Amino acid sequence: MKFGVVIFPSKSLQDLANSYRKRYDPHYALIPPHITLKNAFEATEDDAKKYANQLRKVAREFKPFTLKTSKISSFQPVNNVIYMKVEPDSVLDGLHNQINQEFKEENVEYSFVPHVTIGQKLSNDEHSDVYGSLRMQKVEHEEIIDRFHILYQLENGSWTVFETFRLGEEAE
Amino acid sequence: MKFGVVIFPSKSLQDLANSYRKRYDPHYALIPPHITLKNAFEATEDDAKKYANQLRKVAREFKPFTLKTSKISSFQPVNNVIYMKVEPDSVLDGLHNQINQEFKEENVEYSFVPHVTIGQKLSNDEHSDVYGSLRMQKVEHEEIIDRFHILYQLENGSWTVFETFRLGEEAE
Repeated sequence: MKFGVVIFPSKSLQDLANSYRKRYDPHYALIPPHITLKNAFEATEDDAKKYANQLRKVAREFKPFTLKTSKISSFQPVNNVIYMKVEPDSVLDGLHNQINQEFKEENVEYSFVPHVTIGQKLSNDEHSDVYGSLRMQKVEHEEIIDRFHILYQLENGSWTVFETFRLGEEAE
Repeated sequence: MKFGVVIFPSKSLQDLANSYRKRYDPHYALIPPHITLKNAFEATEDDAKKYANQLRKVAREFKPFTLKTSKISSFQPVNNVIYMKVEPDSVLDGLHNQINQEFKEENVEYSFVPHVTIGQKLSNDEHSDVYGSLRMQKVEHEEIIDRFHILYQLENGSWTVFETFRLGEEAE
């Protein structure tokens, strides 16, 4: 089965993202708006507890941080994903790197561009239209992020949370 | 905003429940299959952390327990909800009572019938048809439950997990 590691931002940012996703993101009904920390990877249900133990330790090493969004951007020409850009942050960066090093199956060769997807799987024409109308919009938002989650995917494509990890918690 | 407290069973039980929910439950896309421990209640986003602290303490008081399902049942004539019956269990019962006492806003006057909903908002005729065809099916399943979750509802009706609580964890 597939697992992934994400941050869910506050309800207000999720509601804003969903107002776009509803029209432009076919994954709208499968998972709430999120910032991906680790892309989907294959593991067994038994492995989940091992991963959770590792992630619990990682979470302790990082403090809550301020997440800032500023504008709407696109990954074109790489792909037709439209997203809310999340400003670079050293804690977020460190968290991403640490999690991906922890699960050594994958080389992290791409650079980490933290984002909340609001549109994807758009045709080139759709992408041009939608991005053209959204790119000038400001999405200035700021909030404290103090947790992240590991999720697994059900057969229907939707995601269920397995566990939450709070940043900066003391060892148990 | 609305919060709720639920158990997500294993992927295999969720997949089985979704095979029915897809056709018979309009909440199919809003939340994964679950056992409700506390019905939706109103609270502010700031309250969430207070509730999480309370639930973290509750979680420590209970050990993981075995969840057993046996058959498909219905709440008719009270309502047209069809569900997988979860066998009574003293830990599950205690957990439900403790959580509902912790949040004193609500009198728990109904008896707790733990279940995984697989159909709801059916007309009387639909209910008769569907329940008639499902009631003879066995759903014998057994698994260990070692966690529960608090969730909040987004404006579009879908639910996001705020935090996970693991049963029987030592104090931090």
